[in-house]
Amino acid sequence: MGKNIVQKIIESHLVSGRMIPGEEIAISIDQTLTQDSTGTMAYLQFEAMGVPRVRTKKSVAYIDHNTLQTGFENADDHKYIQTVAAKYGIYFSRPGNGICHQVHLERFGRPGWTLLGSDSHTPTAGGIGMLAIGAGGLDVAVAMAGGPYYFTMPKVCRVWLKGKLQPWVSAKDIILELLRRLTVKGGVGKIMEYAGEGVATLTVPERATIANMGAELGATTSIFPSDEVTRAFMRAQGREHEWIPLEADPDAQYDEEIEIDLSKLEPLVAQPHSPDNVDTVRNVGPIKVDQVAIGSCTNSSYLDLMRVAKILKGKTVHPDVSLVISPGSKQVYTMLARNGALADLIAAGARILECACGPCIGMGQAPATNAVSVRTFNRNFYGRSGTPSAKVYLTSPEVAAATALTGVLTDPRTLGEYPDVEMPETFEINDNCIIPPPPEGTPVEVVRGPNIKPFPVNKELPDTVEGIVLLKMEDNITTDHIMPSNAKLLPYRSNIPYLADYCLTLVDKDFPERARKAGGGFLVAGHNYGQGSSREHAALVPLYLGIKGVIAKSFARIHMANLINSGILPLTFVDERDYDDIDQDDRLVIENAIEQIKQGNVLIVKNITKNKEIKVGLNLSPRLKEVILAGGLLNYTRKNSGK
Amino acid sequence: MGKNIVQKIIESHLVSGRMIPGEEIAISIDQTLTQDSTGTMAYLQFEAMGVPRVRTKKSVAYIDHNTLQTGFENADDHKYIQTVAAKYGIYFSRPGNGICHQVHLERFGRPGWTLLGSDSHTPTAGGIGMLAIGAGGLDVAVAMAGGPYYFTMPKVCRVWLKGKLQPWVSAKDIILELLRRLTVKGGVGKIMEYAGEGVATLTVPERATIANMGAELGATTSIFPSDEVTRAFMRAQGREHEWIPLEADPDAQYDEEIEIDLSKLEPLVAQPHSPDNVDTVRNVGPIKVDQVAIGSCTNSSYLDLMRVAKILKGKTVHPDVSLVISPGSKQVYTMLARNGALADLIAAGARILECACGPCIGMGQAPATNAVSVRTFNRNFYGRSGTPSAKVYLTSPEVAAATALTGVLTDPRTLGEYPDVEMPETFEINDNCIIPPPPEGTPVEVVRGPNIKPFPVNKELPDTVEGIVLLKMEDNITTDHIMPSNAKLLPYRSNIPYLADYCLTLVDKDFPERARKAGGGFLVAGHNYGQGSSREHAALVPLYLGIKGVIAKSFARIHMANLINSGILPLTFVDERDYDDIDQDDRLVIENAIEQIKQGNVLIVKNITKNKEIKVGLNLSPRLKEVILAGGLLNYTRKNSGK
Repeated sequence: MGKNIVQKIIESHLVSGRMIPGEEIAISIDQTLTQDSTGTMAYLQFEAMGVPRVRTKKSVAYIDHNTLQTGFENADDHKYIQTVAAKYGIYFSRPGNGICHQVHLERFGRPGWTLLGSDSHTPTAGGIGMLAIGAGGLDVAVAMAGGPYYFTMPKVCRVWLKGKLQPWVSAKDIILELLRRLTVKGGVGKIMEYAGEGVATLTVPERATIANMGAELGATTSIFPSDEVTRAFMRAQGREHEWIPLEADPDAQYDEEIEIDLSKLEPLVAQPHSPDNVDTVRNVGPIKVDQVAIGSCTNSSYLDLMRVAKILKGKTVHPDVSLVISPGSKQVYTMLARNGALADLIAAGARILECACGPCIGMGQAPATNAVSVRTFNRNFYGRSGTPSAKVYLTSPEVAAATALTGVLTDPRTLGEYPDVEMPETFEINDNCIIPPPPEGTPVEVVRGPNIKPFPVNKELPDTVEGIVLLKMEDNITTDHIMPSNAKLLPYRSNIPYLADYCLTLVDKDFPERARKAGGGFLVAGHNYGQGSSREHAALVPLYLGIKGVIAKSFARIHMANLINSGILPLTFVDERDYDDIDQDDRLVIENAIEQIKQGNVLIVKNITKNKEIKVGLNLSPRLKEVILAGGLLNYTRKNSGK
Repeated sequence: MGKNIVQKIIESHLVSGRMIPGEEIAISIDQTLTQDSTGTMAYLQFEAMGVPRVRTKKSVAYIDHNTLQTGFENADDHKYIQTVAAKYGIYFSRPGNGICHQVHLERFGRPGWTLLGSDSHTPTAGGIGMLAIGAGGLDVAVAMAGGPYYFTMPKVCRVWLKGKLQPWVSAKDIILELLRRLTVKGGVGKIMEYAGEGVATLTVPERATIANMGAELGATTSIFPSDEVTRAFMRAQGREHEWIPLEADPDAQYDEEIEIDLSKLEPLVAQPHSPDNVDTVRNVGPIKVDQVAIGSCTNSSYLDLMRVAKILKGKTVHPDVSLVISPGSKQVYTMLARNGALADLIAAGARILECACGPCIGMGQAPATNAVSVRTFNRNFYGRSGTPSAKVYLTSPEVAAATALTGVLTDPRTLGEYPDVEMPETFEINDNCIIPPPPEGTPVEVVRGPNIKPFPVNKELPDTVEGIVLLKMEDNITTDHIMPSNAKLLPYRSNIPYLADYCLTLVDKDFPERARKAGGGFLVAGHNYGQGSSREHAALVPLYLGIKGVIAKSFARIHMANLINSGILPLTFVDERDYDDIDQDDRLVIENAIEQIKQGNVLIVKNITKNKEIKVGLNLSPRLKEVILAGGLLNYTRKNSGK
């Protein structure tokens, strides 16, 4: 029987398990990446493992999040990461060199290889046929130490692309269409594998946009074939020798299939506050816009920004709109500065921000009170922009550029002829801002600033797990809710005690104080708990506050893994109706927890307050059960290595 | 008798008083400028005056300070300023259009005219022969309302420039040499007027660098002749019709004279933590450097950045140095993006920040703990970088660029041939980011965000002024000490109650609490109290905390004016030795204050605690005495206009 692309790559990297959806498998990891907001923690954890040098084929540490540097903390963290990278054999991409996913695609990603990254948009590299998965920092640390990556074998969903996009319709509209159809939960437990005649009509940056934002479907990852388009891209990057062809066998099987006729799509927009709240730009209509932001790992490629430059050339940004543009990489930025496109953008009145994640992660450019912001980014979660009252809409760069000119949400098809942009035959290659590690054995002093605090480590699971329900939440709570990420908090990613004061405050501002007073307890949530960013701080901070378990209708994949890694019980309602019978302040007890976990996949939780018992699922592999019982992955790893 | 340039301009603008140093004069103001961190307050004050439209020839509101926008406050303030500008007939320079002084020089400044700006570096326009003075926001508001600007007629000091700079020696080194000789108090009560054969060897941007940083001498302003070099600059800006020649008469008299032989200068550096702590780069030697920052209103012109680009072209920034560059204006930025220089900077590994003040005002790029930062800026006051433990050095762009390449403080003369840069015959002129006000009578709604709080207004001076000494300070306390300015506090410039918690905390972290508990009181300080930035927040916040008077050995000019404008008594020790006999917590009383002020220029202050009397000076014009008695300029203005 033929294989799909996912099966081919997993098979060639399989360390344990069977490729049956729902079963735990482990694969070897060729490359890892970190960014600075998750990286400090990942490297602290890596250091705690006592391994002398990374054991991957290549590991890269990027600085792209904390680049505003409003206090000493960020520059300290950058120094820590630069020195720890040098010490342990990791490539260091300097601040200003660009967004990790864009740079990794340009300079490191390889078709057929595996990549584990401590960032939820790691799947971007799926645009060149790489199996690229986002994970918590601890998982990445384990991979750097040479350990395999354990995860549940996902279903593979074939996304068949038919036809060709109309002018002014963009790759972004393809993924927005998928989000419209499948919702932010639609990809959970799946890998989206793209196929069909439409694939060849898409350039690598366009494929990367789609793979990138597949994260918003909740998918484990997304992947495109590696074909002649991929080859041309890698040739233009001076890396044709790293190219291999990769496609599904003609008789490959898929668990699910979905089809999109590209020629039928029109410009789309995700409305506040969810990437799946999608409608056509035409339907939403000409709402007044205060800010337009172009950039992020989703839409900051050479192709994206050249199109924007051509749209803006010789024109002026609307006086009521603040247009900000963040180039995706030094390569993109240099090329735009060489060919005049950047001058056209500046001349039109665009504010050019540093080459970094910038406003996508709330790192600056918070909109005004009640403002409407149109962004080419991947997430419009409540509060993520830094202004809770702001309304954020997600669109393609073409819609964003048109909107910047008119001051109202604008269907770019009204602008006339589509500005065609050719992919360059050669990109400007200059890796002088990627510092290779010195040879093994070179003495390197790791520099630690005063903002780097020890991270919390759990204890072995006690036999009786008890506590009150500290907070009851709805569906689709994001990691941005759990551990808000903005310009004021991002500098503290290596300081868990400081962050704890902000945990879940977007849901209930009194939560941290209540949790502290109660000495910890349980959280209750609806579906898709922990969607969004991969930040393990959304587990480490609750751990610090004494959270023992989360009972939810369902979990987002990376967050569930982060909870397990922290030794926090991720429990699912066996009967979802029980959600209605549990309230804040209810006292819960799990008796004989150890035995219950060892014996099966269902636990009995006693609600003392309500005098009721409910059943919750804890459907874990034997290995993950061991991790939970040990009090998290670090304890488990130490125990098994005898440390 | 012939006149110098200062006398010529003042005479043609004189409203009242005699041009005798030390006497109060009033001049009419042709143009005003504000930036956003002082502007919100200035426009709130202007609104309080009830004038329907500005009465200057041109008033411009710039946005250049709060451009990181880590919360809604900044975008709200920008909107407020944009709408208030439209309503009252003020030009609005959008965020991204550049630093006020650079843009004003390029597009608005005129030889022979007067400019009042709510920023201490307003004298930059002295580079084209404009009499440009920095003042508090309230003074600027009065000028916008058509009132004259009152100040003490300064002495005029002729700075005679001899010879020509050697290659690699820069205009920055001229002003650093003056600071070395005269100190940060050396210009107090003076205007520096440049003359001599060396003037013609300096381009307008170089003259502007010198005039700009004349502020650090404590000078009222600095001014250059308007000559053929000025004419060529204005022609290149499409403004030759606004040029007039302006030079001192051959027999002009000066109060003081100083001479600098340009050919003898070598690269200089101001060491931590004062701009006058100057030595040669050679003497300071190759100290290890962590950060290099190029930009600010002092050194971000086309000429400056072209030189930097030529030095960096084809090279790579040292791996241990973070090099950040902020272009000074959209014009500069566009031109660098057109001619390839920007591409060279990016390729070398420079991080390009938004076109704005940026790190010079602590708005981002805070150095790491204990880091050494070499900056082309104008101030290296303690804590201003955002990192109290950092050590900031001020140099020319040439020294900074050389240092970025080597990683240690470097005399650029070691680099070989000096990269000559020609001034362009035509600048790229595109004013599309300067929004002219709509015609008078156009309805405009002024938008006020929730961060804009009412500002404190004093009451009439009581006859008994009493309170304890809340804090005793040393010489050279800056407005950065009094009201710290950094990325975390700048967003709150229209929120005095919030700022009050940080007042003088760099000197004593308990000061705000102590002031609040005591219900206000007195401050005691050494020489040059209130040097640095023009921010009137350094008076308004103490007013909010109940400060009634400051007794110092001497005051910086703008801050003293701001104290008077706020109705806070600026008192000087008649006998400086009395400074030693006064301590924190001493209870002071000024009895019959009103009568004492009306009768003379010396007041008796009783120190109840020490059972002593001391004499303090309050040498004010009759008008300023009225201002003090009324409880500040706003009360005085209202009273006199019958409101």
